[in-house]
Amino acid sequence: MTFRFGRTTAAAIATLAMLAAAPLRADTLVENVNGITLDEKGAVRTFSAMLFGTDGKVRALYQRKDKRPKAQYQVDGKGRTLIPGLIDAHLHMMRLGFSTLTLDLSDTRTLAEAQARIAAYAAAHPDRPWIVGRGWNQETWGLGRFPTAAELDAVVPGRPVWLVRADEHAGWANSAALAAAGINAATKDPVGGRIERGPGGRPAGVLVDGASELVEKFVPPPRPVDRDLAFDKAQRILWARGVTAAADMGTSLDDWQTFRRAGDLGRLRTRIMSYALGIDAMLSIAGPEPTPWLYDDRLRMNGVKLYLDGALGSRGAWLKAPYADSPGSRGYPLLNTTQLGNLMSRAAMDGFQIAVHAIGDQANGTLLDAVDDLQETYKGDRRWRVEHAQIVDPADIARFGRLRVIASMQPIHQVSDRTMAETRLGPARLGGAYAWRSIAAGGAVLAFGSDAPVEAPDPFAGMAAAIGREGPDGQPAGGWQPQEKISREAALAGYTTGAAYAGFAEQRFGRLAPGLWADFVIIDTDPLVAAPAALRQTHVIETWIGGQKVFEAGRERDKPIGR
Amino acid sequence: MTFRFGRTTAAAIATLAMLAAAPLRADTLVENVNGITLDEKGAVRTFSAMLFGTDGKVRALYQRKDKRPKAQYQVDGKGRTLIPGLIDAHLHMMRLGFSTLTLDLSDTRTLAEAQARIAAYAAAHPDRPWIVGRGWNQETWGLGRFPTAAELDAVVPGRPVWLVRADEHAGWANSAALAAAGINAATKDPVGGRIERGPGGRPAGVLVDGASELVEKFVPPPRPVDRDLAFDKAQRILWARGVTAAADMGTSLDDWQTFRRAGDLGRLRTRIMSYALGIDAMLSIAGPEPTPWLYDDRLRMNGVKLYLDGALGSRGAWLKAPYADSPGSRGYPLLNTTQLGNLMSRAAMDGFQIAVHAIGDQANGTLLDAVDDLQETYKGDRRWRVEHAQIVDPADIARFGRLRVIASMQPIHQVSDRTMAETRLGPARLGGAYAWRSIAAGGAVLAFGSDAPVEAPDPFAGMAAAIGREGPDGQPAGGWQPQEKISREAALAGYTTGAAYAGFAEQRFGRLAPGLWADFVIIDTDPLVAAPAALRQTHVIETWIGGQKVFEAGRERDKPIGR
Repeated sequence: MTFRFGRTTAAAIATLAMLAAAPLRADTLVENVNGITLDEKGAVRTFSAMLFGTDGKVRALYQRKDKRPKAQYQVDGKGRTLIPGLIDAHLHMMRLGFSTLTLDLSDTRTLAEAQARIAAYAAAHPDRPWIVGRGWNQETWGLGRFPTAAELDAVVPGRPVWLVRADEHAGWANSAALAAAGINAATKDPVGGRIERGPGGRPAGVLVDGASELVEKFVPPPRPVDRDLAFDKAQRILWARGVTAAADMGTSLDDWQTFRRAGDLGRLRTRIMSYALGIDAMLSIAGPEPTPWLYDDRLRMNGVKLYLDGALGSRGAWLKAPYADSPGSRGYPLLNTTQLGNLMSRAAMDGFQIAVHAIGDQANGTLLDAVDDLQETYKGDRRWRVEHAQIVDPADIARFGRLRVIASMQPIHQVSDRTMAETRLGPARLGGAYAWRSIAAGGAVLAFGSDAPVEAPDPFAGMAAAIGREGPDGQPAGGWQPQEKISREAALAGYTTGAAYAGFAEQRFGRLAPGLWADFVIIDTDPLVAAPAALRQTHVIETWIGGQKVFEAGRERDKPIGR
Repeated sequence: MTFRFGRTTAAAIATLAMLAAAPLRADTLVENVNGITLDEKGAVRTFSAMLFGTDGKVRALYQRKDKRPKAQYQVDGKGRTLIPGLIDAHLHMMRLGFSTLTLDLSDTRTLAEAQARIAAYAAAHPDRPWIVGRGWNQETWGLGRFPTAAELDAVVPGRPVWLVRADEHAGWANSAALAAAGINAATKDPVGGRIERGPGGRPAGVLVDGASELVEKFVPPPRPVDRDLAFDKAQRILWARGVTAAADMGTSLDDWQTFRRAGDLGRLRTRIMSYALGIDAMLSIAGPEPTPWLYDDRLRMNGVKLYLDGALGSRGAWLKAPYADSPGSRGYPLLNTTQLGNLMSRAAMDGFQIAVHAIGDQANGTLLDAVDDLQETYKGDRRWRVEHAQIVDPADIARFGRLRVIASMQPIHQVSDRTMAETRLGPARLGGAYAWRSIAAGGAVLAFGSDAPVEAPDPFAGMAAAIGREGPDGQPAGGWQPQEKISREAALAGYTTGAAYAGFAEQRFGRLAPGLWADFVIIDTDPLVAAPAALRQTHVIETWIGGQKVFEAGRERDKPIGR
């Protein structure tokens, strides 16, 4: 009797213990990996196995010698490299998605090739009231001038055509689009923008910066179902390149609603740190303070994105001295100093983070002045962000670190823009161009991104640029302004811990450690060893977010993400 | 040894069993109540105790003779009446909240009293750039005409003043507000609106319907923190009157963001069925289809609110024959037939529900025609809603049931508007006025609401009006158009099952049954027995939503609702 009772009891205990503890057992052990992460202090830590729970959070990292726990699920890493999910610190989520749904001219080599592509696209989409596209670059075409409306009319005469330039700081319209927008010789340049002109002041076809808006407001808005589709596409593109989190730089109300719809329906997987497209959108969406982290740390509105100047390609970047190739122009600010200060104050007073687009050296200097002025009033952990910081006066470089301003930079821009930057700036001003090493040496945190869809959201190409400063063709040999190369560890940090810090996310993701999300990527290349050329060829094998696999090479699903 | 082992084992089993089963045990039993609910088929069910779980859902109802389960928590109902949480099928959540933050003139008896109130309010709030208020009614004042800008200038000459009429279909501006809005003798009446004029066509001060927008767009928008405060206030007002769910009729983007902020921070307790303020807001918020139920069935965007006409008080309601007291006018539609059909189609094609404001008999007839046309194309469970359905041509009454159109009515309007309606319509058209019994007799579902803040959101006053059709003064004796009185059960259904059905919520709340939310109210009056006068005096003792107490008489908290 005693024994029977004892055995029954023991079985009962075992059953109850299983019931009570079952959730704790369903852990996943990722075994046999070349594991790499940065730790809280920025040092590299390696490991050969990682355990995460059903809650999607890392439980432990193991060295080769460590005893492993029993886990319900096992993943064999086959000796490949495992790194934290990469973070793109500056992109445009919805525009990235829409870029897959519209005409893409980014790989055209000549104007004639672009014209042929446009004609074919228009013929293939007879139902679209407007032909909309992006990605053209007259520099790539070797055109030496902007294209014209007439050159579009020659291939699409009847329907409006609107094509955004590769840097998104200019647009190219045909005559039907200009007519639909009511733009003619009498139309004045808007503040912060320029209408390219032909004979008699007639609009020539290209509209720069603020002038783009004159046409864009007439382009039919996408349907909500298109927005959802675009968002879905954007997520897949990111996962395929190992990106598990991103800062969305300029979230509109419609963008935000799209993110929330995805969150509400379980289709939001990527972690999005959102910066509202202006103060009004910020106040409307987030209200009196930054939103909480939503959907298990997959969405938060951190603050606001402001624009202080334009881009270098379209000579909209605001410089301290005239353009080398346009001596009458220094570019122009999109906000005057008072406006900039007021907008930054409006956000800072309610604890919002502020990210300001500044490309030219005058824009960067003015922005640093503004931070200097404001930080007396708005103390505490503010994490002021400069987006791009492309051309900085060497005299201003140390101010980033001194003012604790984060430099949110896009290494790939250096590769793409090198010759254009030389043309625009001349040789004397290149010392502070894409100068990540100097900025970091002054004590500033670097956060790296892609500016997608301006560039492909490929952090491996970005890391290669950061450490090598050379193009895919290996040019220039030894790297451009090679004194600005950084270490592989610093490049990885820019896409992980630095980008997480820049978004107030460092206690949630950006590295692999107990309690943080199990966001990771399995790749075929070791980024701490590989040469730039090898790094660019990195294959992503698997991408995981919150302990769930969202991408597996060769198995991309094309159906919508969803319940 | 054996005994010691046995005892230890037994203790271990007990501990583990508690751990495993603890969530199942923490039920709450509400005992000793006069419980009333309608069941799935609309029949009254009574009970004396109710059990609900920690998940906030009802587990069982018990008769007096039934054996009770053991529950961790007990609530003694002290023999009081317990009914389902009441649903207000038509109100304006944010305006209700803001009404508590702005000048309220609804209880002023004369123009002079209102003027004194306005002057005192302006003096008490010297920091406000505009004086904003609501609730005036020239009929209540016995004025026989609209008030004028000059009468406002006499008490607030310097600052703009903007006061919305009790029915929200007109506004009263002083000269400073008219000047700020740039309204003068040369300003034309906008489509769907009217500027009251004085000598020389100069604006007299009152702007009717669409003309209000001319001033409203210049009123400074509330800060987000004010929105959050207003929402908090609105919830408390509802709970104090036993209201646990509401249809928000005309949710703007900013309103929606406020609801979501509350949801994200755990401050959203009331269940809100949202109808977007127009198609654009609907598409931007919900996208390609109605949102899912969010925050444990506390928020859903069901569809869109459209306006087909104005209100009776301001003679904006669209009638089949001229106003008795203004023979030149029949009111006017805010949409023509084509516009109405297009907007309804745009929503229906994506499965959104459509709620259309229709007050006059012509508006109701035109709307029924539109439903008749559209239901061939948009089949299935559509639940077309007519909001107000105040004045219906007797020939149209049976069409509500035949077309399965829900009549969303506000019984208290009948009490408040009775003499005004007689003046506007004359005696011959009263047969179809506030004719809920006839509409229901034709087979239509009734959903009852308050139109708050136009009226107080008091379902007990509403039930009293529905069954008694007499004012708080008992007039007219025997009730106005007494053939339209309905039973107590039908009145309760209008605020529970009918209102839930009207919002696609009947499987979630609106009655008490296993699996539905434990939303309930404990009151001191039995609504199935009490005379109208007693019903109006009902005291709400406690209000519970999802098994959590949100209101207790005498213990109203005034601090913000928190996590």
